[in-house]
Amino acid sequence: MRCDLCKEGRYNLCPEMKFFATPPVHGSLANQIVHPADLCFKLPDDVSLEEGAMCEPLSVGVHACRRANVGPETKVLVMGAGPIGLVTMLSARAFGSPRIVIVDVDDHRLSVAKQLGADETVKVSTSLNDVPAEVEQIKKAMGGAIDISFDCVGFTKTMSTALSATSSGGKVCLVGLGHTEMTLPIAPAAVREVDVVGIFRYKNTWPLCIEFLRSGKIDVKPLITHRFGFSQKEVEEAFETSARGGTAIKVMFNL
Amino acid sequence: MRCDLCKEGRYNLCPEMKFFATPPVHGSLANQIVHPADLCFKLPDDVSLEEGAMCEPLSVGVHACRRANVGPETKVLVMGAGPIGLVTMLSARAFGSPRIVIVDVDDHRLSVAKQLGADETVKVSTSLNDVPAEVEQIKKAMGGAIDISFDCVGFTKTMSTALSATSSGGKVCLVGLGHTEMTLPIAPAAVREVDVVGIFRYKNTWPLCIEFLRSGKIDVKPLITHRFGFSQKEVEEAFETSARGGTAIKVMFNL
Amino acid sequence: MRCDLCKEGRYNLCPEMKFFATPPVHGSLANQIVHPADLCFKLPDDVSLEEGAMCEPLSVGVHACRRANVGPETKVLVMGAGPIGLVTMLSARAFGSPRIVIVDVDDHRLSVAKQLGADETVKVSTSLNDVPAEVEQIKKAMGGAIDISFDCVGFTKTMSTALSATSSGGKVCLVGLGHTEMTLPIAPAAVREVDVVGIFRYKNTWPLCIEFLRSGKIDVKPLITHRFGFSQKEVEEAFETSARGGTAIKVMFNL
Amino acid sequence: MRCDLCKEGRYNLCPEMKFFATPPVHGSLANQIVHPADLCFKLPDDVSLEEGAMCEPLSVGVHACRRANVGPETKVLVMGAGPIGLVTMLSARAFGSPRIVIVDVDDHRLSVAKQLGADETVKVSTSLNDVPAEVEQIKKAMGGAIDISFDCVGFTKTMSTALSATSSGGKVCLVGLGHTEMTLPIAPAAVREVDVVGIFRYKNTWPLCIEFLRSGKIDVKPLITHRFGFSQKEVEEAFETSARGGTAIKVMFNL
Repeated sequence: MRCDLCKEGRYNLCPEMKFFATPPVHGSLANQIVHPADLCFKLPDDVSLEEGAMCEPLSVGVHACRRANVGPETKVLVMGAGPIGLVTMLSARAFGSPRIVIVDVDDHRLSVAKQLGADETVKVSTSLNDVPAEVEQIKKAMGGAIDISFDCVGFTKTMSTALSATSSGGKVCLVGLGHTEMTLPIAPAAVREVDVVGIFRYKNTWPLCIEFLRSGKIDVKPLITHRFGFSQKEVEEAFETSARGGTAIKVMFNL
Repeated sequence: MRCDLCKEGRYNLCPEMKFFATPPVHGSLANQIVHPADLCFKLPDDVSLEEGAMCEPLSVGVHACRRANVGPETKVLVMGAGPIGLVTMLSARAFGSPRIVIVDVDDHRLSVAKQLGADETVKVSTSLNDVPAEVEQIKKAMGGAIDISFDCVGFTKTMSTALSATSSGGKVCLVGLGHTEMTLPIAPAAVREVDVVGIFRYKNTWPLCIEFLRSGKIDVKPLITHRFGFSQKEVEEAFETSARGGTAIKVMFNL
Repeated sequence: MRCDLCKEGRYNLCPEMKFFATPPVHGSLANQIVHPADLCFKLPDDVSLEEGAMCEPLSVGVHACRRANVGPETKVLVMGAGPIGLVTMLSARAFGSPRIVIVDVDDHRLSVAKQLGADETVKVSTSLNDVPAEVEQIKKAMGGAIDISFDCVGFTKTMSTALSATSSGGKVCLVGLGHTEMTLPIAPAAVREVDVVGIFRYKNTWPLCIEFLRSGKIDVKPLITHRFGFSQKEVEEAFETSARGGTAIKVMFNL
Repeated sequence: MRCDLCKEGRYNLCPEMKFFATPPVHGSLANQIVHPADLCFKLPDDVSLEEGAMCEPLSVGVHACRRANVGPETKVLVMGAGPIGLVTMLSARAFGSPRIVIVDVDDHRLSVAKQLGADETVKVSTSLNDVPAEVEQIKKAMGGAIDISFDCVGFTKTMSTALSATSSGGKVCLVGLGHTEMTLPIAPAAVREVDVVGIFRYKNTWPLCIEFLRSGKIDVKPLITHRFGFSQKEVEEAFETSARGGTAIKVMFNL
């Protein structure tokens, strides 16, 4: 907490940042871990340890919503209905977004998103050629301005779709990191003052996440699809389950 | 002034916008023109008609500086030392930027930029392969954080350079519109929360431009390199001069 | 829509402002009224005319919440449980405030506020001497930082309470206009960077109000306590009912 | 740097704040002092120790300008031409304010302010009855909107003048702390959305102050009117000189 960025309240961008996640600090897969007291937050009685553990992925959605300034006047498009797309959708709802459209290539994921509160879902292909037609579909599904788009995939296609679908004066927040380099129609977006906002992890999110869980504004329990013990064998099995995808959203260890 | 964007003060993004420029309204190349009174501004006695005419290009720089939030705490990189690069540099200075580095492929342009107040200039190539080395050169020329970069060219190369050179938490403002589609290292910029800000023309800039001219904070006279009368022949010659580039920055008609 | 404030999106502050309310335009107590089309908004099928009429007082609460920047991270104190206090409380809830404490001198009003969703109520006196003790009571009722206080009364006492109760770095929004001049402990608030934010009516609020009504995020029906026809006699009776106060919150004419 | 306010970048409001000034930490009147390294900043070769020492009072003006958002589009009124009024005026100029009017009861102070760059000065009385006439004088001296007023005195009269003189949609920043309690026409200001902004000391100001000194944007040397050695006798004499006021602005010790 000694560099310029830290002192300006952007400690997540600190070049000396530690205590956050892997990388750069290994070893969180342990029975006990030492962590700075001011970065520890007590769970209220009515929030379970499992829900509390979900503060980590949920923080990504919360930080994205803060940076994009989601509120009751911003309609939201979410590209991708994987775990990060879902926590972003739940966060956007908790920040008051009146209408959320979510997009994916997978029917099962879309049906989960719908159950978790998406207003509309749009199934898309993986072909770049379909962008123009899909943008029209998405706009129709939204039925009004698309104020903020979250690209929770981060592919050339999803980002191109987001840039084209977002209304003049809106924002695209790049959350997913699928591709490092993308070929994008960025000039046509820029001349409509559609800004691109990036995020790095999060900061000061835990108390808000806990409040969202406590108040019931966000229910993360449906995101926990698999549970494992903490033996070497079970840990390996858990990672394999998570890597396989399928119906797995979040895999939880019970210590 | 009846749509949502107009009522929120972003009339430059209004889908019904007129009275602005070509396109969509042709015919400003005339001896007289009818224009809404509330969009006309009286020049003070000590600002010439020629200087007043420069409010138009200068407005692009002013609007870019406003959107990127330039001030006495933001060091600025300008990609491109053409007319738009130069008005952006002059605007950034007038908004209080303490240090401005400007980049171009052309020695003459860079020497003009230097005369007009750039702190440092960096000559670059047109090859994408040189981006990493040139980013290092630019950082060295700045000698500190690059808070805001203006890409006044809008090519894949200039935008890639800007995204890589800008410091964590900074902004890249896309002003020039060279390429429609660009292949960009956007994810590595996004994870450093380097945002991309677009602009469309400008709004509410005339009074500020006139004040900059009146107070001497900005001197646009050196940008007027050629002057022509207003006969058919002279007009054609003027356009040819401007299109040829070379030493021409701005070409002025005297009616 | 031609002055500087209008063009910057603050048309409610326009010195030439009309079409708004009484004053300056008389005559809204009529069977028909001519109003600019771009300031008319169609009610959806599931929002009644009565609810639609409530967009006017609700807009005051909405504009106050916008100016004070209420969201899911701001705990809110509302001074006064009259009609404006109640619409401000409902708006703060719709903007996502996680905890709202409301204060009044009247038990009935506080019980209405509680029914409409206040988390806690605090009954206070009209004596300035009680401010320090009541500030402590209010802080205890909030149980954490008071980020934003709305003074919906506008008396020396309510404003003094709000300034003292609000946490460092917070905001006090002056909504009610009971006293023109007030004797306030403003320096002790200023050195804690507690800012005072004023409002004048509202702007661009109708679409958001309608959306709050449509979605059920705000239910204004309990605020309509009395209904009258539109004969001369009934109109007079309605005004007398409203002036008497008592259980009357909002009095509605059915044409 | 562990509380919520610190982590949000507002460490000046931290309830545990230390290392700042007296109070709460005594003992800065010493030949040597231990201070955290990250809060120490190296002076460039061309900034003297005396100028460097002026970063402390200058920081008050800089922080006030930041909180009020001074820039090239904000005309500024400064109430009070004492040391804090002067550093606020110099800061407002360095932040780009195009026009600054300064007000005081003392002719000598006003002449110093004029020499240091005020565009206009207005001499006022100490009588509250003169507020309306003086507000007119101040508006005339400004000759346009008064966007931001800094009250560097903090008396009922100066604050009343600032609230009345500031244009609709503007800000009054309370810097001086003359009176704890003030009787103010706050409602008429609030309904014009004139906000009141407070400050507590400053944060992250040293690098900017040093840059202002280095670049010559601010010249603090004329503010140093008296110099003393560091013996017990000289220190006492210095404090007496400062307390007497008169021509003394800032009194400097040379160690």
